Amino acid sequence: MEKYKDINCSVEERVEDLLSRMTLKEKVGQLNQKLYGWEAYIKTENGFEVSEAFKEEVNIGDGLGALYGLFRADPWSKVNFNNGIPLSDNAKVANMLQKYVIENTRLGIPIFVSEECPHGHQALNGTMFPTNIGIGSAWNTELYEKVFSQVAAEIKSRGGSLALVSTLDIMQDPRWGRAEECYGEDPYLAAQLAASAVKGLQGHSTDDLKRNDKLAAVVKHLCAQGASVGGHNGKGAPLGERELREVHIPAMKSAVEAGVEGCMAAYNEIDGIYCHANKKLLTDILRNEWNFQGIVMSDGCAVDNLVNIAGSYEGAAAMALKAGVDLNLWNVAFTKLEKAVKEGKVSEEYIDRAVRRVLRLKFVTGLFDNPFVDETLAEKVVDNEYSRKLNLDMARESIVLLKNENNILPLKKELSKVAVIGPNADYIYSQLGDYTAPQLNGTGSTVLQGVRMVVGDETEVTYAKGCGIRDTSTEGFAEAIEKAKASDAVILVLGGSSARDFGVKFDMNGAAILDGQVGEMDCGEGVDVADLELGGVQVELAKEIIKTGKPVIVVLIQGRPYSIPWIAENADGIICAWYPGKEGGQAVADVIFGNYNPSGKLSVSIPKASAQLPVYYNYKDTSDYLDMTSSPQYSFGYGMSYTKFELTNLRLERDKISLKEINNGNTVKVSIDVKNTGRVPGAEVVQLYIQDLEASITRRVKELKGFKKIWLESGEAKTVTMELGKEELSIWNVDMQFIVEPGNVKIMVGNSSANTQDTILIIEE
Amino acid sequence: MEKYKDINCSVEERVEDLLSRMTLKEKVGQLNQKLYGWEAYIKTENGFEVSEAFKEEVNIGDGLGALYGLFRADPWSKVNFNNGIPLSDNAKVANMLQKYVIENTRLGIPIFVSEECPHGHQALNGTMFPTNIGIGSAWNTELYEKVFSQVAAEIKSRGGSLALVSTLDIMQDPRWGRAEECYGEDPYLAAQLAASAVKGLQGHSTDDLKRNDKLAAVVKHLCAQGASVGGHNGKGAPLGERELREVHIPAMKSAVEAGVEGCMAAYNEIDGIYCHANKKLLTDILRNEWNFQGIVMSDGCAVDNLVNIAGSYEGAAAMALKAGVDLNLWNVAFTKLEKAVKEGKVSEEYIDRAVRRVLRLKFVTGLFDNPFVDETLAEKVVDNEYSRKLNLDMARESIVLLKNENNILPLKKELSKVAVIGPNADYIYSQLGDYTAPQLNGTGSTVLQGVRMVVGDETEVTYAKGCGIRDTSTEGFAEAIEKAKASDAVILVLGGSSARDFGVKFDMNGAAILDGQVGEMDCGEGVDVADLELGGVQVELAKEIIKTGKPVIVVLIQGRPYSIPWIAENADGIICAWYPGKEGGQAVADVIFGNYNPSGKLSVSIPKASAQLPVYYNYKDTSDYLDMTSSPQYSFGYGMSYTKFELTNLRLERDKISLKEINNGNTVKVSIDVKNTGRVPGAEVVQLYIQDLEASITRRVKELKGFKKIWLESGEAKTVTMELGKEELSIWNVDMQFIVEPGNVKIMVGNSSANTQDTILIIEE
Repeated sequence: MEKYKDINCSVEERVEDLLSRMTLKEKVGQLNQKLYGWEAYIKTENGFEVSEAFKEEVNIGDGLGALYGLFRADPWSKVNFNNGIPLSDNAKVANMLQKYVIENTRLGIPIFVSEECPHGHQALNGTMFPTNIGIGSAWNTELYEKVFSQVAAEIKSRGGSLALVSTLDIMQDPRWGRAEECYGEDPYLAAQLAASAVKGLQGHSTDDLKRNDKLAAVVKHLCAQGASVGGHNGKGAPLGERELREVHIPAMKSAVEAGVEGCMAAYNEIDGIYCHANKKLLTDILRNEWNFQGIVMSDGCAVDNLVNIAGSYEGAAAMALKAGVDLNLWNVAFTKLEKAVKEGKVSEEYIDRAVRRVLRLKFVTGLFDNPFVDETLAEKVVDNEYSRKLNLDMARESIVLLKNENNILPLKKELSKVAVIGPNADYIYSQLGDYTAPQLNGTGSTVLQGVRMVVGDETEVTYAKGCGIRDTSTEGFAEAIEKAKASDAVILVLGGSSARDFGVKFDMNGAAILDGQVGEMDCGEGVDVADLELGGVQVELAKEIIKTGKPVIVVLIQGRPYSIPWIAENADGIICAWYPGKEGGQAVADVIFGNYNPSGKLSVSIPKASAQLPVYYNYKDTSDYLDMTSSPQYSFGYGMSYTKFELTNLRLERDKISLKEINNGNTVKVSIDVKNTGRVPGAEVVQLYIQDLEASITRRVKELKGFKKIWLESGEAKTVTMELGKEELSIWNVDMQFIVEPGNVKIMVGNSSANTQDTILIIEE
Repeated sequence: MEKYKDINCSVEERVEDLLSRMTLKEKVGQLNQKLYGWEAYIKTENGFEVSEAFKEEVNIGDGLGALYGLFRADPWSKVNFNNGIPLSDNAKVANMLQKYVIENTRLGIPIFVSEECPHGHQALNGTMFPTNIGIGSAWNTELYEKVFSQVAAEIKSRGGSLALVSTLDIMQDPRWGRAEECYGEDPYLAAQLAASAVKGLQGHSTDDLKRNDKLAAVVKHLCAQGASVGGHNGKGAPLGERELREVHIPAMKSAVEAGVEGCMAAYNEIDGIYCHANKKLLTDILRNEWNFQGIVMSDGCAVDNLVNIAGSYEGAAAMALKAGVDLNLWNVAFTKLEKAVKEGKVSEEYIDRAVRRVLRLKFVTGLFDNPFVDETLAEKVVDNEYSRKLNLDMARESIVLLKNENNILPLKKELSKVAVIGPNADYIYSQLGDYTAPQLNGTGSTVLQGVRMVVGDETEVTYAKGCGIRDTSTEGFAEAIEKAKASDAVILVLGGSSARDFGVKFDMNGAAILDGQVGEMDCGEGVDVADLELGGVQVELAKEIIKTGKPVIVVLIQGRPYSIPWIAENADGIICAWYPGKEGGQAVADVIFGNYNPSGKLSVSIPKASAQLPVYYNYKDTSDYLDMTSSPQYSFGYGMSYTKFELTNLRLERDKISLKEINNGNTVKVSIDVKNTGRVPGAEVVQLYIQDLEASITRRVKELKGFKKIWLESGEAKTVTMELGKEELSIWNVDMQFIVEPGNVKIMVGNSSANTQDTILIIEE
């Protein structure tokens, strides 16, 4: 038996053996992933066949690195319930393609199937969880790991083996349409959540990758896309290395520490160097500093962008390969690598380096020894009672209560008439964010549906759309005002939408239904806005509705923090639900009517206006504008509850610690007592911030370095303890070394970045 | 005779000899400039005496590096025509202080007297020229050199020896209150003008420094203050080195090449390192790369800011000194340098290094050999007919015609009634910018006064203020509307103001006059705004005035580019005059009534709204927002004329050039024919932009690399030729080397960044 087929040999031996047998053409084949997955099969009367396009793709390199998006369903792939692969057949099709590759290539190297899952698997029937900006607001790493365990189980059961997931981008400019894909503005919170996503997808050890409910994660994007000038998607970020290390790469470092097996390079440039050509980033830092062993995938067509500076496809491919890109996504350039080698643009050693990484991952994920998936699993795993409950839990925790004037909330379930109004009140796609597949009608819940589920039988629930998201017609105002006036309370559901236009919708059996409602997309990839005010005539609608004098609860369904200065002043209650996912309507209703006590805390600042940008809590130093404060409307870490929490007795285990002790791994425990002094149980997020008061470089006013979300019964008290050690106390000093410096460090603990108590920790030389 | 007193010895010998005689205390004395100059003297009944404060200051270090702002007059120094030094006595007081120092210190080392002159000497009677943002719009380096020759003559004649001048900041965020101090958003234009300022102040050789009309320039600020996050004054700029080198330091490099003898470090930090602690910037680049021989001055209190990171004054001083700061401005920290040396925080070698630089400059400027100034000069030189004419010329050239619907402009001088309306129509301080001294009433001209000077005798000129700059009262609307209705044409003077509140004004004899009009400052140092819309109710006033149906010419007097989307759409004519200086009113009237054909071109983009920021022409790559274009209202380089210019026949001397030829100093000539096809003479600014199409790093869409302003009679044609060589064609490559790379370069020539024709230059390997 060839050594590479011998399960008793080490992965390294198997990789080297296989590599030694490969032609240059076969090697280049392993670095490519060019075809769109939905073009790899043909649906016939009797089932599915391998497409000619796929055969050709496999033939080009006598093998293939990966197939992208076999199950991706969206307006772009045009896959929907009419033409897509039924859930029951997903694994069969994946196995069919895998079988074709193994049987029709000289060496029989299996392929990866990579799938998008920024907030659930972007496939028909995939469970659509809240988007990252909501995940960030939940501050619950354990729950989030469960979410991605579910995502992993779904994708793997269908035959996917690489999960592409947004975990790395830091939102520093809410104009950016991909704000929704960021956990928020804070690098520490993002780092914790990135690790949770990786553990959920991959498990807790390399061995777990072989399980039938785990797969390799490809986290994206490396890096700094969230600092793109003007919030423009994927453009320039003229950042320095310290800013990069402090803000934009901690999430990747954390993912690497969690064992992540893949990452995707970002579209943008950093200080003139495209991420796809950035050796320092992709090799020096990622591999040499952090010892990352996995693969670096290109973003779609991002290597081809390098033709601008490299002059040719061959040059672009050589540039990216040398910098550290291993596996292609859709780029023409990478298909020219054989030519690039022959032209002397890149040596075969770089090809071998990348092929080793791809093969290693195929071995450690068990693809060679177990290339086929159990064809009976998907129907059990995907979109079941458990996933729906988990989704509801995640949505509830991600909801942030921003305002509750006179404790108007929770509303009583016994109100005789509730009006649910607004463009986001009854359109499921507005809750789901970008990277969403067509949904079956009758599944999930909008806010209107959620309210109907939650209120008592006696309560009449009326509905009016009122206006669109960006449309400026006020035609619907009259009906909305009338219904508001006739109600005891109004739930006004405003915000934004990343709903792409599918044209058709689907019933439970997959038949198309045209219902006339089309999304008005104002967020999502490639959809950046300049003005952060709510779009269209939404604020005018709010003014009219609030003018009725009825109690008005504004619910914001949104993927970025819109500015709401007037609403913040005038609404009775405000709930920010972000894009709460498919069960989000019920989750919002649960909060409004008190089935769930809100516990979310903002993971982004909500600015007062675009004119203030950038607005984030971890600034260096600032001053107010003549015409406007530089403070946000609502601060990072802020969020209300239906109960009250008292935080008292902030204390350090010790006031002083020596550098030597810290460097030896000792930590300082920071404790605070938290008591629920209100009448209902609830959760509080205790947040630990620091500021080094005597650093050799300038410091931010606050940096999050710990948090704990705790549940307390009414009257219950707990002590929360967090630890500060070398990792938390280190800074990138003037010589770009990551070290702890002696001096005073301010320790701040509270339930919002704007509400902390503090003490001093002395670090002695 | 001691060697250092021997004029026949070289400067180096004299410096070393003197240094060898100095105690540590005396050395530290030479590095200090702590006292405010206006506290150095006492006005008595009989004249002036040396103040005790000055004696003490001199005594501390048995000598003194410099005295700051002896003549500075503003609300902060409280110097005005009632209590200040009359022009006739300026030099006497300076000589008196110099004499005191020489006679009352062991070594008799003379002091520098440093004065502010960002747009003229900030002293009583100092000629107040247009601010830099207007200078940038004039694109006339020769005229600007004359301006600073005048400034040099004024300051030197009074006894000043160091001229502090804003030349280095690049305006990337118009929210910044110091936008007015920037030449604009372009590094190349700023570099040319910085060199002109230096040559004007210092002359063309080191020997010129000894002339009685030249002095050493201290250019400020190094660097990147204009990239401060959010436009907040002097805060963080998280930039990478390439961005820094491409945008923020070319002006300093150019100043060094022009022989500049001093620079001031900036308040801000760059990627976590305060400029005052930035060895790479102040030593590695400035000294080692560029061979700068002059002094680095601190900004006021900026070394003390380092206490935040250094923990003590001694530590802060040591940090700044080691990084490369030589001469203190107001910092406590630098007065502790003796202690810092004794505590071992910094070695005396660093002290010596800085002292050598200060002494060298005192020698090369002739201070040792000729410490006193001619006391009869100032009255001849300051504020004379020549300076007023020069100021008028400079103002005229800085004015940009933005809109001229149906050739409404120039207005006929024979109109029977002209209404001049608006908050900036008749308040001289609104034209002068920040860093302005009290002005004598009756000097200079406001727009109202200018119009009265320019129109025919038959024309009635009416005036109404209409509203304030930031005040929201509409009380004045009725009168303004009435006067507009009764007129044949309206000149509506809007904008902003950096007018600080002096409380009192002064007549020609220096007596205080209270006239009730107080400036409403919304720009200037420390006055940043968030929203770029015109302040207060100015836009509402414009709407009311335009509604009258009369021809309306909007004149913008402003230190930053305010957003004027409505006015751009609806006014008949728009003139941007920036802060046009003391003769600005006449200059504006000359343009309006055709005495001068406008020739200014914007040196900054005028954004449509804050929501678009950042907006500059030399972006890397961008995309439109969903709700707004990313293009500005008016582009960099744009400006209209009363005549028409045709640019034709763009051509290169040669299509190809080899790397070797370029590196050997060969250039490529770029030529274009320009013809004045209109009926009046005028000036056109021909602009040369390039884009490297095959660079190893990402390139901006356009970069200015040459310009020429030419005057053409009606019907006249000229060929404009500019050259591209190594300096212009080099980029900071991936390894941060400044080199030319082979490949195609796009060559664009036009009369605006938004209106160019192009061709290709091939650079061969």
